Amino acid sequence: MHNPQLNKEGELQHLITLEGLPKAVITRILDTAASFVSVSDREVKKVPLMRGKSVFNLFFENSTRTRTTFEIASKRLSADVINLNISASSASKGESLLDTIDNLAAMHADMFIVRHSQSGAPYLIAKHLIETNQQHVHVINAGDGRHAHPTQGLLDMYTIRHYKKNFSNLTVAVVGDILHSRVARSDIHGLTTLGVPEVRAIGPRTLLPGGLEQMGVRVFTDMNEGLKDVDVIIMLRLQNERMTGALLPSAQEYFKSYGLTPERLALAKPDAIVMHPGPMNRGVEIDSAVADGAQAVILPQVTFGIAVRMAVMSMLAGS
Amino acid sequence: MHNPQLNKEGELQHLITLEGLPKAVITRILDTAASFVSVSDREVKKVPLMRGKSVFNLFFENSTRTRTTFEIASKRLSADVINLNISASSASKGESLLDTIDNLAAMHADMFIVRHSQSGAPYLIAKHLIETNQQHVHVINAGDGRHAHPTQGLLDMYTIRHYKKNFSNLTVAVVGDILHSRVARSDIHGLTTLGVPEVRAIGPRTLLPGGLEQMGVRVFTDMNEGLKDVDVIIMLRLQNERMTGALLPSAQEYFKSYGLTPERLALAKPDAIVMHPGPMNRGVEIDSAVADGAQAVILPQVTFGIAVRMAVMSMLAGS
Amino acid sequence: MHNPQLNKEGELQHLITLEGLPKAVITRILDTAASFVSVSDREVKKVPLMRGKSVFNLFFENSTRTRTTFEIASKRLSADVINLNISASSASKGESLLDTIDNLAAMHADMFIVRHSQSGAPYLIAKHLIETNQQHVHVINAGDGRHAHPTQGLLDMYTIRHYKKNFSNLTVAVVGDILHSRVARSDIHGLTTLGVPEVRAIGPRTLLPGGLEQMGVRVFTDMNEGLKDVDVIIMLRLQNERMTGALLPSAQEYFKSYGLTPERLALAKPDAIVMHPGPMNRGVEIDSAVADGAQAVILPQVTFGIAVRMAVMSMLAGS
Repeated sequence: MHNPQLNKEGELQHLITLEGLPKAVITRILDTAASFVSVSDREVKKVPLMRGKSVFNLFFENSTRTRTTFEIASKRLSADVINLNISASSASKGESLLDTIDNLAAMHADMFIVRHSQSGAPYLIAKHLIETNQQHVHVINAGDGRHAHPTQGLLDMYTIRHYKKNFSNLTVAVVGDILHSRVARSDIHGLTTLGVPEVRAIGPRTLLPGGLEQMGVRVFTDMNEGLKDVDVIIMLRLQNERMTGALLPSAQEYFKSYGLTPERLALAKPDAIVMHPGPMNRGVEIDSAVADGAQAVILPQVTFGIAVRMAVMSMLAGS
Repeated sequence: MHNPQLNKEGELQHLITLEGLPKAVITRILDTAASFVSVSDREVKKVPLMRGKSVFNLFFENSTRTRTTFEIASKRLSADVINLNISASSASKGESLLDTIDNLAAMHADMFIVRHSQSGAPYLIAKHLIETNQQHVHVINAGDGRHAHPTQGLLDMYTIRHYKKNFSNLTVAVVGDILHSRVARSDIHGLTTLGVPEVRAIGPRTLLPGGLEQMGVRVFTDMNEGLKDVDVIIMLRLQNERMTGALLPSAQEYFKSYGLTPERLALAKPDAIVMHPGPMNRGVEIDSAVADGAQAVILPQVTFGIAVRMAVMSMLAGS
Repeated sequence: MHNPQLNKEGELQHLITLEGLPKAVITRILDTAASFVSVSDREVKKVPLMRGKSVFNLFFENSTRTRTTFEIASKRLSADVINLNISASSASKGESLLDTIDNLAAMHADMFIVRHSQSGAPYLIAKHLIETNQQHVHVINAGDGRHAHPTQGLLDMYTIRHYKKNFSNLTVAVVGDILHSRVARSDIHGLTTLGVPEVRAIGPRTLLPGGLEQMGVRVFTDMNEGLKDVDVIIMLRLQNERMTGALLPSAQEYFKSYGLTPERLALAKPDAIVMHPGPMNRGVEIDSAVADGAQAVILPQVTFGIAVRMAVMSMLAGS
């Protein structure tokens, strides 16, 4: 099967991962998003682009925040949204994932926003829809296991472009638990595709996956070294369940070595921006003085995230 | 009290059960549904028939699938939908069912879609609304205990009519756990009212209720015998909780005796259709080769289900 | 900080409490509500006043009933509604309340409906939005701890004005668990601001807070005495968790001393009205004969509640 994300005309058909997505397609998404940023500022924040379309939020893993961003994006596009918390429903009745999908598609769904704890689930769904000739339904991956979170990756690219104008002269550091982070993976694919010359990964050896160098990433275990002269710092959330146990001694120890403090931020370029996908653990991966400081662009990321999701959804609906 | 489902003009006022519903009313619902099948195929899948109406999904028993079909039907009719999972709310605060109903009616509700684990709850609600002169609110039974699931029955009738054109020369078999199935009960009432000359019930003796013969149903405990020359096979879901215990030896044993395999299907007429209300237990009541085969109309049932619900809702809202 | 509820022009900016809210503002809300009462009676129950606005129901404490009234009010104003059950989401991920608020504001929210088990949470949120210059987002307190429930207070004022025309010659009794009741507190502030000459609190000593006299309230522990010649009786819900334990001997004992029976109701003026915020405990604080009797206006309260919430929301959205 060819790249299931693009149709024969090279248009976006599904959004599963940024890996392998052509630079031209990513750029078109970011350009489309720019036109939606202003929509959210208007008195009436709606456009009729998806009026009468049925969008299903299929959350096999709970995530109120991500579900909310897609729900808002859908409503601002005038689509009808149906929220399904699948773990609590058919799955418990023993129905297979693909039977559930076929059922919802038979209700004339137009779009599935899929969140799943297992890597590959959105790909499996998209592949099934193609093989069974149900191309009227489009799939957006809203985060699958450790694999990908492409709309978060795209909104991060949008944010960087907004503040840094172009990618071709940047040094970008991704900091923290790279190993378990689908956000890190999507960001790295986005950054390399868009031509960022130096992408760095910073974290303790236990939280760095193998293969980063092959992806074109420079690896640092010393944060002070890694932050030197960077233009963009992408902090990752340290998930609670990692904070104690085999991989990390404690949250306090982690903050001492990898927490972003004003002193460490001073090592980056003076106009460096600080990003975080949220929700933040203040005092664990990021100091409040930085999170609330002048270089943080964490809340603009959220704002751009709505516009980016509106862009992806409207492009899929129009293809 | 006269039949609470019809008003004095004989129009549909509530939909509680197919038992006693006149053939003319059922036929009018199916005809109306036919006009909605095409709506879901359009670019803009909405009609303004229920704009500004408030539909409450009152699910005292969890059922994401059924709730979803009503939510989509409501939105395609442009109604406002409020989802209430009642078990988690007032019920736990000790409020009585009818106080909850009166409260919601006082909010100027137009329609209650009621799912309840106890047989008779939707009837009780409809009766109360009539007695308290709150006729502006219409009740649709979305499944009550073992009693009835009339919109499922109607969509099954629609499906049969779609594929078989008329009812007057058909043999229809309902197979499986008839005893606990509100779907079976609604189907049998629909089939006999619409004039199907031979309705069969097939299942193990422990899962067959008494009184089937009085309803005009031929009973078979041998599946091969029961399937002989039938035009329509309606498979029922075997609920997990029945699979082990006093009523059945095991899921494997059940499949051996009552699972629909290609070999068994061959006993029916060559153009027989296979139906299932979902969610399916593949390998328990139905073989995957049949579920995914050319004679299965299980996914069209889902599609027709939206149109049938739109038909019932718009007829009630217009009465 | 000045009264955070009003902007510099004296217009409503947030609705946190009725305490300190000027009489003119309350009266304007009630007048606006009157114009919405008729909207819910129309064939199409919608007005486009909040089209394209994003309303977030932020329920940190579960309350299906209150959430539903705000959801209906929002939809009848044509707003987009996002329901967030926060206890189940970010809060569990360790994010701070104000980080959650900033995130949602960054999605270009227009309004937060906040329910919280801790007194002061909605005030904290409103104060934060003002301090961080995010005045485009308006906060409505939908009940916080024992502190306030201003929309319930307002709908109670609306109901009293509807039936009694003016406040200046009334005696109003609030009966029951005053100590734990945010409804009682909001009612008392509303009544005194609107010029009710005699407000009474009736309840067992263990359920009466200190300071009532300073609020201008006459306190009674004997119900027969307290009900004498009153025009309005506001019954409070006795919460299940109070019924046994240190504060009360039992539900039966409570009913004997403070349950509103037809005999007790006869002590009030002949045209006295009986109110209750719901959900009722029949047989605990109120006898069914009273709850369903001719003097009860409990269901009209619900109807007026939708109009009052539409009034508050549309006034905030327009400021």
